[in-house]
Amino acid sequence: MAEEVVLLDFWPSPFGMRSRIALAEKGIKYEHKEEDLRNKSALLLQMNPVHKKIPVLIHNGKPVCESLIQVQYIDEIYELGGRVWKTKGEEQATAKKELIETLKLLEKELGDKPYFGGESLGYVDVAFIPFYSWFYALEKCGNFSIEAECPKLIAWAKRCMQKESVAKSLPDQQKVYDFILEMKKHFGNE
Amino acid sequence: MAEEVVLLDFWPSPFGMRSRIALAEKGIKYEHKEEDLRNKSALLLQMNPVHKKIPVLIHNGKPVCESLIQVQYIDEIYELGGRVWKTKGEEQATAKKELIETLKLLEKELGDKPYFGGESLGYVDVAFIPFYSWFYALEKCGNFSIEAECPKLIAWAKRCMQKESVAKSLPDQQKVYDFILEMKKHFGNE
Repeated sequence: MAEEVVLLDFWPSPFGMRSRIALAEKGIKYEHKEEDLRNKSALLLQMNPVHKKIPVLIHNGKPVCESLIQVQYIDEIYELGGRVWKTKGEEQATAKKELIETLKLLEKELGDKPYFGGESLGYVDVAFIPFYSWFYALEKCGNFSIEAECPKLIAWAKRCMQKESVAKSLPDQQKVYDFILEMKKHFGNE
Repeated sequence: MAEEVVLLDFWPSPFGMRSRIALAEKGIKYEHKEEDLRNKSALLLQMNPVHKKIPVLIHNGKPVCESLIQVQYIDEIYELGGRVWKTKGEEQATAKKELIETLKLLEKELGDKPYFGGESLGYVDVAFIPFYSWFYALEKCGNFSIEAECPKLIAWAKRCMQKESVAKSLPDQQKVYDFILEMKKHFGNE
């Protein structure tokens, strides 16, 4: 089967340009599809239902993201996590759903590799693993299990935690939870 | 002279953890200084006057940032650039000042290397160079010269533009400016 690579893009987007450069540097041929952001295509909504944002890279019908876009998604975990512990009810339910969808997307990117960087820890791993220290607090605040939804991602996190560089740099998950409880008290949203 | 490396940090910060892991992976010994974010130290305000945020890494008395933090700063250019073209008067002056300070900080990180990645294009270069296509529009909207403030950074951008992968991925600067003018019209802030 011929490889089919499609980039859903919007020409002035710096984030789109990043993907274009990365593809060009790797010598990957692709079809460029320009999106009208005020009237998003069905393909964009289908391929990126969480963020509905460009750029989206589609490889043989499946959405993938190159590493800088992965870091972009990882940074959104920060905001989504914030919404999980700061809100309640429907708002919290939406944040939980979006967080899980983002984590699943990243889990898919990991695939069966031991690390995002391949055989060894790369910059995507370094960018991502700190958020693992917040997972327990998010699970307690949101009353859900990330491991049940994303078992391969948790296996990856535990693999990273076996490295001394990671283990000694991340705080204890219980300590983070206690910190969050204090913050909730401080902001009056217990 | 002994090397002195200090990390200004806040223990639950995922961005601080990234720096900790990066330092540990590189086997760099450093002094860890915990910040009270409600009462920031004079050192933090001096070392990071633009963002006043942790983490800050200080090498022999000078602030430096490792590559994931550089990408963090690069992503702030997006917001600062938006404020330059969307606002006027004092608000615009502040945004211009902060944009230049951020660019200067990144220029300092580049140093005398041809690329942020060293001898060849790396992921920080790929993350950063797209914003160059917006510089002309920002200069016209803000009535200032980025090249006059950051000549080495512009030399780096022109060096990147000599690569086919970059040149063919970035739009014409005039076209971006025309797009911004249309956006300004659309949002009623001409």
